[in-house]
Amino acid sequence: MRPRVVIVGSGFAGLNAAKALRKADVDITIIDRRNFHLFQPLLYQVAMAALNPSDIAFPIRSVFKDQENVVRVLLGEVSAVDLDNRTLRVDEDGVEYDHLIVATGATHSYFGHDEWEAVAPGLKTIEDALTMRARVLEAFERAEAQPADAVRLLTFIVVGGGPTGVELAGALEEIAVHALGQEFDVVDPSTARVILVEGTDRVLPPYVPRLSESAKHQLEELGVEVKTSALVSHIDDRGVTLASGERIDAGTVLWAAGVEASPLGAMLGEVDRAGRVVVAPDLSVPGHPEVFVVGDLASVEGVPGVAPAAMQMGRHAGRVIATGEREPFHYKDKGSLATIGRARAVADIRGLRFSGFPAWFAWLAIHIFYLIGFRNRFFVLAGWAWHYLTFRRGARIITGLPGGSSDEGVGSNPDG
Amino acid sequence: MRPRVVIVGSGFAGLNAAKALRKADVDITIIDRRNFHLFQPLLYQVAMAALNPSDIAFPIRSVFKDQENVVRVLLGEVSAVDLDNRTLRVDEDGVEYDHLIVATGATHSYFGHDEWEAVAPGLKTIEDALTMRARVLEAFERAEAQPADAVRLLTFIVVGGGPTGVELAGALEEIAVHALGQEFDVVDPSTARVILVEGTDRVLPPYVPRLSESAKHQLEELGVEVKTSALVSHIDDRGVTLASGERIDAGTVLWAAGVEASPLGAMLGEVDRAGRVVVAPDLSVPGHPEVFVVGDLASVEGVPGVAPAAMQMGRHAGRVIATGEREPFHYKDKGSLATIGRARAVADIRGLRFSGFPAWFAWLAIHIFYLIGFRNRFFVLAGWAWHYLTFRRGARIITGLPGGSSDEGVGSNPDG
Repeated sequence: MRPRVVIVGSGFAGLNAAKALRKADVDITIIDRRNFHLFQPLLYQVAMAALNPSDIAFPIRSVFKDQENVVRVLLGEVSAVDLDNRTLRVDEDGVEYDHLIVATGATHSYFGHDEWEAVAPGLKTIEDALTMRARVLEAFERAEAQPADAVRLLTFIVVGGGPTGVELAGALEEIAVHALGQEFDVVDPSTARVILVEGTDRVLPPYVPRLSESAKHQLEELGVEVKTSALVSHIDDRGVTLASGERIDAGTVLWAAGVEASPLGAMLGEVDRAGRVVVAPDLSVPGHPEVFVVGDLASVEGVPGVAPAAMQMGRHAGRVIATGEREPFHYKDKGSLATIGRARAVADIRGLRFSGFPAWFAWLAIHIFYLIGFRNRFFVLAGWAWHYLTFRRGARIITGLPGGSSDEGVGSNPDG
Repeated sequence: MRPRVVIVGSGFAGLNAAKALRKADVDITIIDRRNFHLFQPLLYQVAMAALNPSDIAFPIRSVFKDQENVVRVLLGEVSAVDLDNRTLRVDEDGVEYDHLIVATGATHSYFGHDEWEAVAPGLKTIEDALTMRARVLEAFERAEAQPADAVRLLTFIVVGGGPTGVELAGALEEIAVHALGQEFDVVDPSTARVILVEGTDRVLPPYVPRLSESAKHQLEELGVEVKTSALVSHIDDRGVTLASGERIDAGTVLWAAGVEASPLGAMLGEVDRAGRVVVAPDLSVPGHPEVFVVGDLASVEGVPGVAPAAMQMGRHAGRVIATGEREPFHYKDKGSLATIGRARAVADIRGLRFSGFPAWFAWLAIHIFYLIGFRNRFFVLAGWAWHYLTFRRGARIITGLPGGSSDEGVGSNPDG
């Protein structure tokens, strides 16, 4: 029997681990709770009504249909790991492995304030993105229906000035001004206030100060109010209170601060303060050379929680298993890009720092290049071209719970 | 003050009523529970993973942004009608009208067996379509995980042999054979059984017998088993029992039988057995010439519940209000088309009856023509071209409740 490699998680790390093993004499099983790989860097575009879920999601089975040593794709949730007996518990079943690659990543965290989740949705899954989209579009509808409360209802607060927060704030301002500007009768969507709240003293803290400054300037050009050194002490359904005591009334609060590692990490070995597994130089778990942790769940000095790092770690673990050579992992920093809006972005590519249209164009090219599969690439490009030329957003529909609200006839459409 | 026209429902009937009033000296308010017009005839393609929700949904505000006399679009649910005081109750508010057009259509009905809804989802809303899509795709995943039960899990029953049932059955067979055929390891999706169950003695009962026969033949060529004169007496989560006593075990049952009028009908006047309002020849409610009922909610002798009829009724009511001339409504039958699958359909256009590729091509052309807005038309066409050439389905992702399952890390993707 060939060695059994089990990969848990089909994000960038897990997917690239499996691909690095494509010529290896092993049997690969991929386990994920979802049937698709999600291109997470574009998730905010689903939330901001510019892309459809299926534009950025690709069925795992399709990705690997021509890779013969992927013998099994299993939809399920890993609830326990028995390192001594090399067995995972997946729902009710046991799955044995000879090599294990854990790539279950991270989700957003409310720093102990889980009660904020209900009033300030975060962005990690397709469902989160659709929730966020519905909240944002509904805010304008509510303002139209209750114009007396329009000032508050048309105030949007984004908490967290990292790449996701910057992207969301820029897109919100564009929705208000361009996509909805002319379509309401009572309120004027372009009067919406978008406030980006960041705890440190500048947006995009991982970037050099000059690019943070540029990002802030580009956001302000769009109309976003940027508040730095502003810590949130309280969030409720009518707004946000800052640690300074300042109260900002708002109809919608979006959460883009803080991530938390998958709970699977704690079952594997020593974890750092963020819950990430402290791994050996070859990305294996100390004492368990047959177990690797890759992607956002791995704690490696000097390696940020970004997609390229996850891809590189996944490939590294795959190669160690394929070759048996326990090389240490070295992160190649290929640069950082953060987009702010239409023709607005910042870029830091191997010390070459630029912003505005050239950075946005680089961002566009790289994201299209990395999107898996012809169809997605084509449709995303077509969607963007349409959006760029018309300023309109193609996915501006408010949908709710599947199965919900189907049995009331009022407002439904005639049959065809 | 200009006369206030209130239109409830933004399906084909409501939308066309508003458009027919575009030059009238009135103030139009459109009320709907949803923020979009849904192109219902293509909803089954969302359910069958070929199209995205936003491909067939278009924001109401966008549709009317250049029509100046549409002064208000209100998202809300009409809970009561006070005909004497010409006032609607919309959520907590009262909305007064001088002319009222009610176009709230119909939804699917389980003939008094509401308990079947949980095990046999119907198809009326975007959420219904996503539920159906998830059930179908999950059936293959469950079969892969539990191969001992694969024969049952890979049996799909479609209840109802009207246009929707025929479309669903054909698409299911195509998904099993073409879209998923090569991607599973344990089970072979192409062995799936698709059974179409119809209570009358032929599929597509409104068509002439020769086209029903052709539709049955085309379904059988695809691999669908067609059971006519077969009434369902019981549905549970393991299959269906027919009135004949025959039991068919199945993993998935889809409901495409029976519709039920919007409950708003009963608040307006006399209703027929299906809950539709019996209207005067000009489509107004007897005794209330200022109130019109159009689309699937209207009961008019000889007028079927199809999209072209709803459009015509909507336009008629709009014209009566605009001109003040109470002409009787005359339905122009422009023909009927039902699609069965790739290059398979039946058509009956003013007595010209044909099937196969020509009928399918006519169906394609007409549906693209009627899709509102350039973007949708373009994306649907691109999606179909891709699907036609590759046999793949672009929207094959299983998504669930927005807001659900976001706080567990297992299987999630690394951050970007």
